[in-house]
Amino acid sequence: MGLFSKPIKTLDDLFVHTLQDIYYAENQIVKNLPTMIGKATNPELKAAFQQHLTETQGQVKRLEQVFQMHGQPVKAVDCAAMDGILAETKEIMGDCDDPEVLDAAMLSAAQAIEHYEITRYGTLAAFADELGRSDCAAMLRQTLEEEKATDKKLTAIAESRVNRKAA
Amino acid sequence: MGLFSKPIKTLDDLFVHTLQDIYYAENQIVKNLPTMIGKATNPELKAAFQQHLTETQGQVKRLEQVFQMHGQPVKAVDCAAMDGILAETKEIMGDCDDPEVLDAAMLSAAQAIEHYEITRYGTLAAFADELGRSDCAAMLRQTLEEEKATDKKLTAIAESRVNRKAA
Repeated sequence: MGLFSKPIKTLDDLFVHTLQDIYYAENQIVKNLPTMIGKATNPELKAAFQQHLTETQGQVKRLEQVFQMHGQPVKAVDCAAMDGILAETKEIMGDCDDPEVLDAAMLSAAQAIEHYEITRYGTLAAFADELGRSDCAAMLRQTLEEEKATDKKLTAIAESRVNRKAA
Repeated sequence: MGLFSKPIKTLDDLFVHTLQDIYYAENQIVKNLPTMIGKATNPELKAAFQQHLTETQGQVKRLEQVFQMHGQPVKAVDCAAMDGILAETKEIMGDCDDPEVLDAAMLSAAQAIEHYEITRYGTLAAFADELGRSDCAAMLRQTLEEEKATDKKLTAIAESRVNRKAA
């Protein structure tokens, strides 16, 4: 979550701020995934990244709907955690010559991204429930389930292919 | 994961770097949890943070053993993702007056920390397996299971108490 643009006084403030944080994070992912797709060698990993890009574009739109349903302008606040994960990923991509080690490193980064999203969407859905916004909670849980499915797929790729090849 | 102190050429380099990253992260958690314990109002949350501190101290020692088993010096590298999560947590703690909203925010931060640890220990255990270090993998999976249990406990607290009170 990013540093706060306005003081957090109520659970509603915290909910809106967390929405702004994940909106920033999702947009950063859309911006960075094409480079990862380009660098991936393992065809399953490349396909998973491609599917994740399409899915993330849908998740950005879903977040825009949640902002609207909650009567809030669509807004992003800088998210230092996501910036950190992406900075490291870029550094690996510039640094590593071995395509299979690079795949393993990008897979590890992608799973860190997924887990950040899983924790934030889980929190957002719980906050929405408590605020009586079951409509927003239902939309946020749709994305949460997509993120969990992506993480499982990445774990299966990690277990079956990339790491074994890289060793 | 932090920016790299040396180029990542092999899966072994990546494994050691990820160990150094999570070693930094665990030590930052040990440093920051006492303030969160002091600020928590909900007694279940306070107790969960206290137990997590004791557990994290054990996890730091376990990581030191893994470094030793793998013939590597114990070393930390800066982890920008964990720095980001902790910077936000500190900002909330200085910003929020309502103790129940503060509990909800700290709980959300604690779950982001847990998910970062879950993804990194999962990756480390998979790397260790691929490197033929099942001894290291077994130790890393002990911590992974503890982190998953902590995350479940935090989710239960979120669902049952803090968020409902803060709304």
